[in-house]
Amino acid sequence: GVLGSGDFARSLAVRLVCSGFKVVVGSRNPKRKASLFPAAAEVTFQAEAVKKADVIFVAIFREHYSTLCDLADVLVGKILVDVSNNTEINHHKESNAEYLASLFPACTVVKGFNVISAWTLQSGARDGNKQVLICSNNQEAKRTVAEIAQVMGFTPVDMGCMSAACEIENIPLRLLPAWKIPIFLALGLFLCFFTYNLIRQVIHPYIREQRNKLYKIPIEVVNTTLPCVSYVMLSLVYLPGVLAACSQLYYGTKYRRFPDWLDQWLQHRKQIGLLSFFCAALHAVYSLCLPMRRSHRYLLIETAVKQAMEKKMTIWVEEEVWRMEIYISVGIIALGLLSLLAITSLPSIANSLNWREFSFIQ
Amino acid sequence: GVLGSGDFARSLAVRLVCSGFKVVVGSRNPKRKASLFPAAAEVTFQAEAVKKADVIFVAIFREHYSTLCDLADVLVGKILVDVSNNTEINHHKESNAEYLASLFPACTVVKGFNVISAWTLQSGARDGNKQVLICSNNQEAKRTVAEIAQVMGFTPVDMGCMSAACEIENIPLRLLPAWKIPIFLALGLFLCFFTYNLIRQVIHPYIREQRNKLYKIPIEVVNTTLPCVSYVMLSLVYLPGVLAACSQLYYGTKYRRFPDWLDQWLQHRKQIGLLSFFCAALHAVYSLCLPMRRSHRYLLIETAVKQAMEKKMTIWVEEEVWRMEIYISVGIIALGLLSLLAITSLPSIANSLNWREFSFIQ
Amino acid sequence: GVLGSGDFARSLAVRLVCSGFKVVVGSRNPKRKASLFPAAAEVTFQAEAVKKADVIFVAIFREHYSTLCDLADVLVGKILVDVSNNTEINHHKESNAEYLASLFPACTVVKGFNVISAWTLQSGARDGNKQVLICSNNQEAKRTVAEIAQVMGFTPVDMGCMSAACEIENIPLRLLPAWKIPIFLALGLFLCFFTYNLIRQVIHPYIREQRNKLYKIPIEVVNTTLPCVSYVMLSLVYLPGVLAACSQLYYGTKYRRFPDWLDQWLQHRKQIGLLSFFCAALHAVYSLCLPMRRSHRYLLIETAVKQAMEKKMTIWVEEEVWRMEIYISVGIIALGLLSLLAITSLPSIANSLNWREFSFIQ
Repeated sequence: GVLGSGDFARSLAVRLVCSGFKVVVGSRNPKRKASLFPAAAEVTFQAEAVKKADVIFVAIFREHYSTLCDLADVLVGKILVDVSNNTEINHHKESNAEYLASLFPACTVVKGFNVISAWTLQSGARDGNKQVLICSNNQEAKRTVAEIAQVMGFTPVDMGCMSAACEIENIPLRLLPAWKIPIFLALGLFLCFFTYNLIRQVIHPYIREQRNKLYKIPIEVVNTTLPCVSYVMLSLVYLPGVLAACSQLYYGTKYRRFPDWLDQWLQHRKQIGLLSFFCAALHAVYSLCLPMRRSHRYLLIETAVKQAMEKKMTIWVEEEVWRMEIYISVGIIALGLLSLLAITSLPSIANSLNWREFSFIQ
Repeated sequence: GVLGSGDFARSLAVRLVCSGFKVVVGSRNPKRKASLFPAAAEVTFQAEAVKKADVIFVAIFREHYSTLCDLADVLVGKILVDVSNNTEINHHKESNAEYLASLFPACTVVKGFNVISAWTLQSGARDGNKQVLICSNNQEAKRTVAEIAQVMGFTPVDMGCMSAACEIENIPLRLLPAWKIPIFLALGLFLCFFTYNLIRQVIHPYIREQRNKLYKIPIEVVNTTLPCVSYVMLSLVYLPGVLAACSQLYYGTKYRRFPDWLDQWLQHRKQIGLLSFFCAALHAVYSLCLPMRRSHRYLLIETAVKQAMEKKMTIWVEEEVWRMEIYISVGIIALGLLSLLAITSLPSIANSLNWREFSFIQ
Repeated sequence: GVLGSGDFARSLAVRLVCSGFKVVVGSRNPKRKASLFPAAAEVTFQAEAVKKADVIFVAIFREHYSTLCDLADVLVGKILVDVSNNTEINHHKESNAEYLASLFPACTVVKGFNVISAWTLQSGARDGNKQVLICSNNQEAKRTVAEIAQVMGFTPVDMGCMSAACEIENIPLRLLPAWKIPIFLALGLFLCFFTYNLIRQVIHPYIREQRNKLYKIPIEVVNTTLPCVSYVMLSLVYLPGVLAACSQLYYGTKYRRFPDWLDQWLQHRKQIGLLSFFCAALHAVYSLCLPMRRSHRYLLIETAVKQAMEKKMTIWVEEEVWRMEIYISVGIIALGLLSLLAITSLPSIANSLNWREFSFIQ
């Protein structure tokens, strides 16, 4: 059974019908709404629909939950699936599912399907996240809903008892919260270092010697900027650990909570580290592209021609040779080690390591 | 208990014995078959074996299930594990496990272990997929079999009730079905563009100017072909979404099913996108290898020598310099962005993103 | 309830309090220990604490389990969570949890939380593995503890019945056991090939022609060493399969266990393969860096100048051109294929492939 006639209710009905379920839709105006639903779904009055169904998806807004109170008698003993979402994180004191459960104590309420978009429901789980997080205080009801999700092509995940509903309702509202600060930090650092390098490599030679080096902006200036950003970000990964240790030494205890800013910082370390790796990898690619440029080719030929005209044979500068060999070789080793760190931060790899192995690699 | 004496039955017995279980094998000819099984396993007549065991693995073909009907009396109350596979997808109307359950209504039937190969069973779960998908209508029996799988070194996965048996039986018959069309598409596109570039870069100059440029085939022609394939594939990822939106606008409803070809296309987008990324990454590596080639070196020296002999100092062409700098720089940024898309399509990353985050990244 | 006052007990109390649980700590000297615990936790005598709590975390060493025997009466019917670890793998005959269960037959014992470090407990699950492996013979008790873990921010994983406790207790003692032999093998091979290449490319020309080529050590010698290591490692991945097949042919049966050394070898194939890929990838990066070196630049200019002075125009050697083009092109294809193998060894990808697909890709 599905109660409601919004976008989500209709998509849910489409998917349930496609998965072979018998669907009955409850509406306050079944005649007008019937055309919105797939032909195989029976659209009828709410009370009728509830009587015919054992599992009822409540696809209406929290604000209208109370309008269902007339149905309290027919709802006794049914499984109500709360699929609602909020518009703000922690908008209400109690989660929608707990509120529904408090309105209908004679029903078993299961929270689920809210993490799935109407589009995914309608078109079937194709790409992206196929998990349906489910929680309820009743094991049997949870299992029934999990099996419906399985048949619909999703992967049910048991999130425990009803107290997890609040967390599940907050999930669809998230938009990469842990990445915001690290990304703005990286952009800020990039801008600073880019300006500095632009002045040093392009503007300064132009003012002093009137030499036009504007062509350096897209590759060379960016390429000297990226490792600076990467270094600073990498040091920001390890700095908070040192500060935390200092704070523990200062207060003489390990069990005091860290100040909020340090706690926030500690929580963003993984994202800062991954952005540092991303900058380092881009720097590697930019550096490898240097010999492909026309400007590199022209300068090389120019030097050769100049030397040939001066009949100067050897220009081998041992110090410069060594500096470059060591610079490149250390760079490759650093990139290789950073890659290992980046790989161990993949969820499926991290889950196969115990904390001893994880801290050994770190 | 194990019924049967084929390859799978023997491998199963080997693994069960290695995992510390007491194994009894039921055979119609125990004397002749005993030598095939590990010494620690007791080989006896079928009825004897069934009496001694609580959990019985039925490792015989579906066609011979009916021969077990003589054992119906001793089988009452036992847990039967159906490990069978089919030779074709959806070969029979009902799954083997459901057929077995209909033959022995007094037994509890559990589907499982069919996704594991005899080789993996025999040698232990080493690499590849260690998951054992299990389904049954009886929770208790499912748990018992899951714990046996756990002790044997596999990862049991609860797939819900018996109706999932059909899906589980189809899994081992799959051979990358979602990849077939995208791979043939990529190969087709590669061939077309390769022929075009071969004619343009090698055959045409040979006919017109008799210049032998055959050496360009392994790297340069392939390298100009790859980005063409990549571009076309990438556009094929985003085209069906546009077509789907058009179809929805045309029919005036979001809830109409798409035509089959569009539905198929929408389902293959992820694979097409990954192949597009693979071609783009190969193009990057090929391009980076260009300055390593002898031909590059020879042409460079030739130009330098020619200029030195003509006493021509400067050959700097500002336009060419800029074109190359911008081309390389845009290429790196595009590759960086495509990498992010590719990383988010890893199952473990995709599962940690909600649909809002996933569509934001897309 | 928490019994014990060590590092783990205190971190556990901190996390439980932070997660909103009411915590009571049982100590033999509550007055002295109270200051060690967060203010929100009630510290009292052991018997008092046990009476007040339904779920009791036993955070004391196995050696002191017997000291709890005085509490046997008040412990009746409680859930005891064994969080202990050992100092050696398989130190005792029976696992700590099974020993605890044998001491208190009237309690329900659950094994769990031992895979989490005190630091992770105290500061919250931030990065690394968030899984809490749980096992118990009692489903209801397991579910209760799983829900506590969920609320604390961890991911509970059901590991089945008590017999899994031994395995769970061994997990935190592991330190990448499968990687030790492959890494030492790779290092050994690297050293051998490095010495050989050093003699050939640096020492030999120095002795014979007094030419100083020391600058080749950091990049060129390493770069000729890496593919040798990679090749040998790759062949070591496929050799044991051949040996296993020979052993099966020799003994005339598939069901005989392999000798221990071969079994060990078969188990390390995945790690050997990944190290082979790592060496191949490093070789690719090193090779791509070759044209960036000063030495490359100097040699190129030197050749150009020499030719210009000899008025020699063409130095095109068709054979050398072809050799390099084919060498690079085969290298790129090999790297592309090895990348696919490496990607399918990611746990989340491997779990989405059936064995037929996995062996097809291999």
